[in-house]
Amino acid sequence: MAAEPVWSVDPRTGKPREQVAVEATAEEVDRAVRAAHAARGALADRAARAALLRTAADLLDGSRDHVVEAADAETALGPVRLTGELARTTAQLRAFADTVEEGSFLDVRIDLPDPGAVPPRPDLRRWKVPLGVVAVYAASNFPLVFSVPGGDTASALAAGCPVVVKGHPDHPATSELCASLLRRAAVKAGLPEDVVVLVHGFDAGVALVRHPLVAAAGFTGSVRGGRALFDAAAARPVPIPFHGELGSLNPVVITPAAAGERAAEIGAGLAASMTLGAGQFCTKPGFVLAPAGAAGDRFLDALTAGVSETEPSVMLDHRMRDAFVAGVGERAALPGVAAPVTPGAGGAHTVSAGVLAVDAGRLVAGGHHLLLEECFGPVTVVARYSTREEAAAVLDLLPGNLTATLHTTEAADDPDAAPLLAALTPLAGRVLVNGWPTGVAVAAAQHHGGPYPATTSTATSVGATAIERWLRPVTYQSTPDHLLPPELRDGNPLGLPRR
Amino acid sequence: MAAEPVWSVDPRTGKPREQVAVEATAEEVDRAVRAAHAARGALADRAARAALLRTAADLLDGSRDHVVEAADAETALGPVRLTGELARTTAQLRAFADTVEEGSFLDVRIDLPDPGAVPPRPDLRRWKVPLGVVAVYAASNFPLVFSVPGGDTASALAAGCPVVVKGHPDHPATSELCASLLRRAAVKAGLPEDVVVLVHGFDAGVALVRHPLVAAAGFTGSVRGGRALFDAAAARPVPIPFHGELGSLNPVVITPAAAGERAAEIGAGLAASMTLGAGQFCTKPGFVLAPAGAAGDRFLDALTAGVSETEPSVMLDHRMRDAFVAGVGERAALPGVAAPVTPGAGGAHTVSAGVLAVDAGRLVAGGHHLLLEECFGPVTVVARYSTREEAAAVLDLLPGNLTATLHTTEAADDPDAAPLLAALTPLAGRVLVNGWPTGVAVAAAQHHGGPYPATTSTATSVGATAIERWLRPVTYQSTPDHLLPPELRDGNPLGLPRR
Repeated sequence: MAAEPVWSVDPRTGKPREQVAVEATAEEVDRAVRAAHAARGALADRAARAALLRTAADLLDGSRDHVVEAADAETALGPVRLTGELARTTAQLRAFADTVEEGSFLDVRIDLPDPGAVPPRPDLRRWKVPLGVVAVYAASNFPLVFSVPGGDTASALAAGCPVVVKGHPDHPATSELCASLLRRAAVKAGLPEDVVVLVHGFDAGVALVRHPLVAAAGFTGSVRGGRALFDAAAARPVPIPFHGELGSLNPVVITPAAAGERAAEIGAGLAASMTLGAGQFCTKPGFVLAPAGAAGDRFLDALTAGVSETEPSVMLDHRMRDAFVAGVGERAALPGVAAPVTPGAGGAHTVSAGVLAVDAGRLVAGGHHLLLEECFGPVTVVARYSTREEAAAVLDLLPGNLTATLHTTEAADDPDAAPLLAALTPLAGRVLVNGWPTGVAVAAAQHHGGPYPATTSTATSVGATAIERWLRPVTYQSTPDHLLPPELRDGNPLGLPRR
Repeated sequence: MAAEPVWSVDPRTGKPREQVAVEATAEEVDRAVRAAHAARGALADRAARAALLRTAADLLDGSRDHVVEAADAETALGPVRLTGELARTTAQLRAFADTVEEGSFLDVRIDLPDPGAVPPRPDLRRWKVPLGVVAVYAASNFPLVFSVPGGDTASALAAGCPVVVKGHPDHPATSELCASLLRRAAVKAGLPEDVVVLVHGFDAGVALVRHPLVAAAGFTGSVRGGRALFDAAAARPVPIPFHGELGSLNPVVITPAAAGERAAEIGAGLAASMTLGAGQFCTKPGFVLAPAGAAGDRFLDALTAGVSETEPSVMLDHRMRDAFVAGVGERAALPGVAAPVTPGAGGAHTVSAGVLAVDAGRLVAGGHHLLLEECFGPVTVVARYSTREEAAAVLDLLPGNLTATLHTTEAADDPDAAPLLAALTPLAGRVLVNGWPTGVAVAAAQHHGGPYPATTSTATSVGATAIERWLRPVTYQSTPDHLLPPELRDGNPLGLPRR
């Protein structure tokens, strides 16, 4: 059988640009995983890991124009956004280099022996070790920061795990370019280039999660694709952790008092957030509870005005565009659903952003479950509620989310704020007040994850704690100093944070 | 259909003692989970959680004679062991009360806003919140410390999660007694008694892991039972974390130099460890790599002598006894397997401890995989190796383990020590040198878990970090102080450890 070609496609025209690779066969996936596995010993050196991450950031920054051009040609996300995404990617790589050097992620805990305890307590020294080869499934919508050089790869390398990335078919040329830079960085840091290996193809992705030497997986993508891989990971003879970010509605609740205070500002802010990047952010606010009545009407008018002004946009690929057009059509056709701005096809290759509106009572009555499912692209659903109890009843119907947002008054005088915030917290991993969820700061206190289907685990894929996904604890009991890893020895020769 | 009775059975005779309960129907499981779920709000109060844990410890200690008598009648583990197990159980409950009060498990991380950053960083404050109702599956072999009042229950309550325990059929009366004490402790601590609910029955256990309001599960038991529940947890519409401890060989490697130095001592120590509690510890050393040659022979002689002196013992139930007799018989019948002490049936209700021996070469050649599977009960398999490479080749064949043990010389002059320790570390969550794995100290640096099938996750079920299994992070972004939980407010009103 001939190798399946992997084409780079221009989403602005739907036309193939160039063939950049072929899909990996099962044998090629096996070779890729074995090569990565063979490179794992070299990654035990934390200084080399930090050097790799910093060098990769430098090489990516050094090829900025080339990377941005390649990514824009394949994704139509535009040079401004992609330049920002690259800056975020390299900042994240450098942040993980800092994390590696600082060492608290090793979570070293030492219990000195207590022969007087009943029963006597031996010398116990715990730290964390890398799990092994990590499979990374790149996202469509972030060709850099959630793809080959993104957070899953950076955190896995920081943990000491080699990575096999399954590239996303929406940006294979960008993936090849980034992988070559990462592999070059490895060699410059004195490591084998196979600490990062790239494969392409749907079947390759399935073979990867089933490979016996793959020890964990990170995924960013759809509920359907992610769940299939999660199921494969769980069904292995030796199941592995599967950290998948699958889908999120990112509900927003606007209190009556907030709408009374600044309906226009909230409407305009929402219009900007939900259309950002053609509505293709995993944190796009896709479902909004707004009060019925005049203040809520003013909010909806401002949202409508903002979205109406949006130019048609190019989505990441034509399959997504067609799914968006079909998805919004199906939703708009439901009884009682209005379309203050009709979403749908723009030109032959674009989509138009839109807003759907419905009475919250319809949702509480049990119909219209489709409105509570993510629709990828520039659309949001506004449900109008009459009472706080009705809003809370709708929130009870929602699946898990990455984010949940409350809009309340600037002053601390809103009686709905505390109860609605309490109702939002169980729904998400990040809760925002008077802000918008698009834009995820890379910071120690960040959590990018949430109850299923937002995430298949309790872990985060952004921020320093993302490294925890690729480690497991090992405790040494009564082990002589000379046989301990230096990280655990008496006198703390490496100066690590320890408890 | 009539309710299925749950009998307490005397393992010393195989005779039923009394009917203590009935198996829970699906409706009863649903009621139990809903009752626990309704109690979750009350557990948000950390002071009440600490009081609950301490009161439970006090009530268990206050009923010591009663609890030990009940457990001995059902398990035949003997009052000495059970008195020790109860002390360990109550110490663990009090240790988790300390953990709750100390508060670092909340992992509070605060990033103050940085408007000068590109992009500007908002105020981010992260902590961890309880997942919800936890299903706990009690173990056969520890009727207290891995059962109703054990580590899974204690850590889940400490995390703020109500618990529904599925009792083990080997000790239903003990389970009922302990559950009633825990529920009484809840009331004394001002909490609803349904923060702990007990159910019985195999079908009830399956219904429990599938219940939509169950948010996580903890399990200690067999590979077969644990894997079936793990699969059910993963197959749910909303999958949940399943922390199962399933099975472990707990390999031991004795270097030639160690055997040369103290063969008799190591043999005697192993005999004591592998027969402790009728060989029914999850950390029983069930597989030993000992050098060929004279020093190794002396080790085997000492092991043989020690095990030969062991009295026949009563196992936890007759099904286990029969499985042990069949399992050792099947293993002993393999070609090339000797039985320096023949394990098998003792009297009509007991088993005799034994030792099996085989050349490591047979294992490397690919046969005899059965010898690399745990056989629950008082038996160990000694594989004799000729070279360090052969020993390492056998280790490569082993599944994951809770523990791995190296016996080396007392002085730092053993050339095999470092390479064999390096080969053992990937196999286990706890690595011991010159000790025995039975006995798991409750300590901050403890890790009781290991690669599959030892554990289905990277978590520990013993030690302070066991609480991490029942929590998920939530980050608040740009949230006004008055809407934040007190744990995250400016000025740290609760005095928690924060980063």
